[in-house]
Amino acid sequence: MEAAVYRARLEAAASRLGDTDALLVAPSADLVYLTGYAPMPLARPTVLIVTPAGPTLVVPTLERPLADACPAADAVDIVPWDDGADPYTTLAGYLPPGGSIAVGDRMWSAHLLALQALGTNRRWISGRRILAPLRMRKDRHELEALRRAAAGADAALADLLRAPLAGRTERDVAATLAELLVAHGHGSAAFTIVASGPNAASPHHEPGDRTIGSGDAVVLDFGGEVDGYHSDTTRTVVVGEPAAQLREVYEIVQDAYAAALAVVRPGLAIQEVDRAARTVIAEAGYVDRFIHRTGHGIGLEIHEPPYAVTGDDTVLEPGMTFSIEPGIYLEGLFGVRIEDIVAVTTDGVESLNGSPRTLQRVG
Amino acid sequence: MEAAVYRARLEAAASRLGDTDALLVAPSADLVYLTGYAPMPLARPTVLIVTPAGPTLVVPTLERPLADACPAADAVDIVPWDDGADPYTTLAGYLPPGGSIAVGDRMWSAHLLALQALGTNRRWISGRRILAPLRMRKDRHELEALRRAAAGADAALADLLRAPLAGRTERDVAATLAELLVAHGHGSAAFTIVASGPNAASPHHEPGDRTIGSGDAVVLDFGGEVDGYHSDTTRTVVVGEPAAQLREVYEIVQDAYAAALAVVRPGLAIQEVDRAARTVIAEAGYVDRFIHRTGHGIGLEIHEPPYAVTGDDTVLEPGMTFSIEPGIYLEGLFGVRIEDIVAVTTDGVESLNGSPRTLQRVG
Repeated sequence: MEAAVYRARLEAAASRLGDTDALLVAPSADLVYLTGYAPMPLARPTVLIVTPAGPTLVVPTLERPLADACPAADAVDIVPWDDGADPYTTLAGYLPPGGSIAVGDRMWSAHLLALQALGTNRRWISGRRILAPLRMRKDRHELEALRRAAAGADAALADLLRAPLAGRTERDVAATLAELLVAHGHGSAAFTIVASGPNAASPHHEPGDRTIGSGDAVVLDFGGEVDGYHSDTTRTVVVGEPAAQLREVYEIVQDAYAAALAVVRPGLAIQEVDRAARTVIAEAGYVDRFIHRTGHGIGLEIHEPPYAVTGDDTVLEPGMTFSIEPGIYLEGLFGVRIEDIVAVTTDGVESLNGSPRTLQRVG
Repeated sequence: MEAAVYRARLEAAASRLGDTDALLVAPSADLVYLTGYAPMPLARPTVLIVTPAGPTLVVPTLERPLADACPAADAVDIVPWDDGADPYTTLAGYLPPGGSIAVGDRMWSAHLLALQALGTNRRWISGRRILAPLRMRKDRHELEALRRAAAGADAALADLLRAPLAGRTERDVAATLAELLVAHGHGSAAFTIVASGPNAASPHHEPGDRTIGSGDAVVLDFGGEVDGYHSDTTRTVVVGEPAAQLREVYEIVQDAYAAALAVVRPGLAIQEVDRAARTVIAEAGYVDRFIHRTGHGIGLEIHEPPYAVTGDDTVLEPGMTFSIEPGIYLEGLFGVRIEDIVAVTTDGVESLNGSPRTLQRVG
């Protein structure tokens, strides 16, 4: 992305400071969003300081060449600190002695506590109020990357399901899925959950040595990144013919998905998306087995604001992207989850994924 | 590792609380060390609370099955919180209303700030004083994993250098090195720096499209993990015959390495290791081109305490493991760094790596 994009984002962040005197951002998706700079998070602090006077990037001396080469290098004042010096004193030199300092969500506590220990009248608050509204509304380049990520995930799934799953271990299927994501344009796979039979009752099951067998429901939940923007798709497939209870539960989850999708439009509070899915599952008698929220924002991070959960009253706007992923989990038996990524449009919703949401029978 | 190991570590952490009323640990190497539990860090908080009354693990409900299956499950009280509920209120219920609360270095600020915003008389401090002394002293199982990681890195390097580097891009060599680490027993490669010619003047250079050519010095700095414990090795090799200045600088770095290695023994403050290397480079007139500390602890993390840097007065004890990695960086020309991992023994030092530290000529 060109330098002008980052300059505009830095200015937008500064303009949202309000009563806050400074915003501190450590290596994270927030830093990538504002500057395009993506160093590894280290015990050595790298911190972007946004104040009304302009942005400063404090970096370890040995990473100065990396910082100088980042897309926003001309838009920030780069200040190095040497190994053996106290970086927190350097950082504090760019902060007001008191007032309100906002901190990006992903900064390590080691750094925040070291700054707090300097013991002034500074008040430390979350930077989410400043950053989340900017990051939630994707521009057309970001939407395009998310569409490519979703399409790559769809293609990986279609390829996977061309061969039988029965007789393979979860771990083996997970490894294939990771390779297929990369084969279909992903820079890397971030996670590949393969949960078969009773294992699928654990939503974040770690794929293991269980061999997939006839009649198993298999939850496949996977994603990675394309140009930094993420995919995240879940399908539940069945090996052979589904038992009656699986068919029944699958249809409820499918209906919950459809109900949630149907309400998405600009102006709606995102918690209403959760309510729409949850009502369908509650009316079917399974509400205590829907043990997670309905969805999460997605972009530079797999999970980011807004969240489709009771209590998140973020009002949907065009360009917001999030998952819809109702599920029902029956301990000792099976689990079902269906997940796609959607984008809010000017008058409704766009589904970024195109894989069928009906129950697919596989070998 | 068996459950008894984690129970002992949890007890050791509790016994080190001292005046501190509770220790909070989020998903991180600290959590792996204490419990063997390694969930992804998420916006949904997972927090281990260690108090004199015993350890509690607060987890999102949907990850409860994962937590129940972790090696320390029988040694901790597992408390789930539901999506839509306020996890920080749940967490606070396990904390004293005031007093001193220690926090692991890697907890996200989002979680720490949310706890601080509950607004009681709690004082928040770094948990490093409690955790670092435990994690720094490796037991024999940890040392064995570190030896296997170092041996795998040595073997990967030897394989890499069997074929010419000239004519290949840095990116291509980096990809091969990552594959070779996995081929030689690593679970995954964590980083592979390949910095050729003038690029090597940037210690954390990101491998790019530069084609390696005759006469180039090439810095290869790479590592990954074996059973969770890391390798981290650097060699600088030369394509063809080295120029006189490269030979001179290489010998200085080699001497600095040898001087640092020679002082390592139990009872020495680790900053003296830095001083030993830096003195050699200073006497040769290059001290302002040695732009980083001499080394870092290594184990479950690539960088962890103690640090071979002025100001770290950690006294070396048997079982401590760290890198020795002096370097000289000449902007626009080249860079040289030599890095191996060492372990402090009862009467001196063990080199975990066995690759030659002389200047290797490659094709």
